[in-house]
Amino acid sequence: MPNYVVTPVGYVKSQNDEIILKYSNKDIVLSKKIARENREHWTPSHIFIEDEFIDCLDGIEDFSHLIILFWTHKTPEQARQIKKVHPAGMKNMPIKGIFATRSPVRPNPICKTTVKLLERKGNILVVEGLDAIDGSPIIDIKPHLPSYDSPLNVKLADWMYAIMDEFKKMAEDDPEVKSHRDIRTHPCINSEQK
Amino acid sequence: MPNYVVTPVGYVKSQNDEIILKYSNKDIVLSKKIARENREHWTPSHIFIEDEFIDCLDGIEDFSHLIILFWTHKTPEQARQIKKVHPAGMKNMPIKGIFATRSPVRPNPICKTTVKLLERKGNILVVEGLDAIDGSPIIDIKPHLPSYDSPLNVKLADWMYAIMDEFKKMAEDDPEVKSHRDIRTHPCINSEQK
Repeated sequence: MPNYVVTPVGYVKSQNDEIILKYSNKDIVLSKKIARENREHWTPSHIFIEDEFIDCLDGIEDFSHLIILFWTHKTPEQARQIKKVHPAGMKNMPIKGIFATRSPVRPNPICKTTVKLLERKGNILVVEGLDAIDGSPIIDIKPHLPSYDSPLNVKLADWMYAIMDEFKKMAEDDPEVKSHRDIRTHPCINSEQK
Repeated sequence: MPNYVVTPVGYVKSQNDEIILKYSNKDIVLSKKIARENREHWTPSHIFIEDEFIDCLDGIEDFSHLIILFWTHKTPEQARQIKKVHPAGMKNMPIKGIFATRSPVRPNPICKTTVKLLERKGNILVVEGLDAIDGSPIIDIKPHLPSYDSPLNVKLADWMYAIMDEFKKMAEDDPEVKSHRDIRTHPCINSEQK
């Protein structure tokens, strides 16, 4: 199969410029310090769309939530070779395949984040919930459609719940953070796993 | 900003090898005939992962739903230049920017589909709901996490509801199809839009 070339259509402007999950010694490591520092600065982020692609935004303001595909440009090239990681860089978790994780370090380092669209100002999208650091190249933007993108009756690996619990605890320990999403109460989670 | 190179990690094996939404004359057109023929053959699809990336799948069988990123390889190169289309190729819909649509023809022709994982057999993932034709190159696979990927209180453009209604009607007219997802009853849709 041939390779394909992606051309960034824009980039992220954010107060955060340090990555939380970093490649190190054939694994990823989590920086709790950076996670804490970044947490209060994720919202809002700004997406700047290149002039060439402004027309592609026509009508986007009629959607409340958007899917953002971005390239994790700080991932070193050799990091794309690793196949397994400690999920979320947590050494107390079992090592799993990259495709079973949301690691930003991947064979094709493309992240997918669904954001809330707060405002569109010309070629700028002001969004909530984009976990992309400053300068991240934007690859694609799509409207989020629940009937297509949000399946019901979802089951997750036990270790994924454990990771979400650790993130929740980290956020609760931080007086700046008032609440945190609980993965088990989501209406799309399988009732046996709630 | 530089361009980036994506390397397929696998490919789709499906009974469907004709595309429903095709680039034509600076727009996309919908083939109802192919949509009808394909409908009964989408499930199951098989994703074959290249040997080099098998280890990336470790642990994936513990998730019920996966996010699949694939390249729409039948999109001609010049099609990546268009900026607006009739959404879903329906000429009775208002012309909108590509980023406000799920058109497979896009500046970077990457589609994102969330599928149900039916079975993993070694390097093969048997999945339900993958709308990728035979031979589509797989770019990435991720576990679907409702608390991260399925926001609540979602609002959509009116024309998107109209498109979903047309698709629903097309499926109802087809005696082979017994039910169709209704976009308005989804628990993640804003209550005013239900």
